[in-house]
Amino acid sequence: MIQGTQSLAPATGFQVGQSASLTRVVSDEMVALMAQVTGDTNPVHLDDAYAATTRFQRRIAHGVFSGGLISAVLGTRLPGPGAIYLSQSLRFTAPVFIGDRLTAQVRVTAWHAEKRRLTLATTCRVGDRITAEGEALLLVP
Amino acid sequence: MIQGTQSLAPATGFQVGQSASLTRVVSDEMVALMAQVTGDTNPVHLDDAYAATTRFQRRIAHGVFSGGLISAVLGTRLPGPGAIYLSQSLRFTAPVFIGDRLTAQVRVTAWHAEKRRLTLATTCRVGDRITAEGEALLLVP
Repeated sequence: MIQGTQSLAPATGFQVGQSASLTRVVSDEMVALMAQVTGDTNPVHLDDAYAATTRFQRRIAHGVFSGGLISAVLGTRLPGPGAIYLSQSLRFTAPVFIGDRLTAQVRVTAWHAEKRRLTLATTCRVGDRITAEGEALLLVP
Repeated sequence: MIQGTQSLAPATGFQVGQSASLTRVVSDEMVALMAQVTGDTNPVHLDDAYAATTRFQRRIAHGVFSGGLISAVLGTRLPGPGAIYLSQSLRFTAPVFIGDRLTAQVRVTAWHAEKRRLTLATTCRVGDRITAEGEALLLVP
């Protein structure tokens, strides 16, 4: 199940501070599917015995999972379909575990109407813990 | 099917220029699974009729697909399991279409042995066309 929030969009253009989010619980099945789709079969994501030997002590979700949830907010909520993804940066600041309730939030930090370029701060959280943060740049035709 | 290349790893540490890659053909099924896993149901990825109205004229793969394939190279080949993903930047420079044969390559640009920090240039290509490029930073315990 996906839950989300979305602030009201102006009729044309975007306003700094405007934001949207999506929340998903990271399931075992989703991690297995992500390994299948990306080919990233790193045992830290898939193998309990191996993961127990790592600093995280248990299996973690793929980092790109956070990138995917950010992409979902951008592609379906703010700015939504029709926008062209130009760039994304992500710093992974804390692990995301199986069963975690992950929220991706995007917040407009700049809108250049002439160039149609939208910059957003992108943050992933599990509760109060920030797990990833970065910046997205999109072209909104 | 996944195909890949990998240059020989030194017994300890890493050398600038050392590289690895993975290649996958982007299938319709993989794009559908990526939409399911991430929740990114943007019609530019899923709906032929909608996609025909966009500048790309047909459906494109999720941008995060390129991020996932890069993650697969990092997590399984260079530096491989055990490394901790600290950050990733990606500029999307060209679309990836269904049926495209996508190659993700990572190449060591810096290795700080004391801090155990590895920096890699990350590039995705379809044939000679660069579709995404950026930089990854990992901690290799």
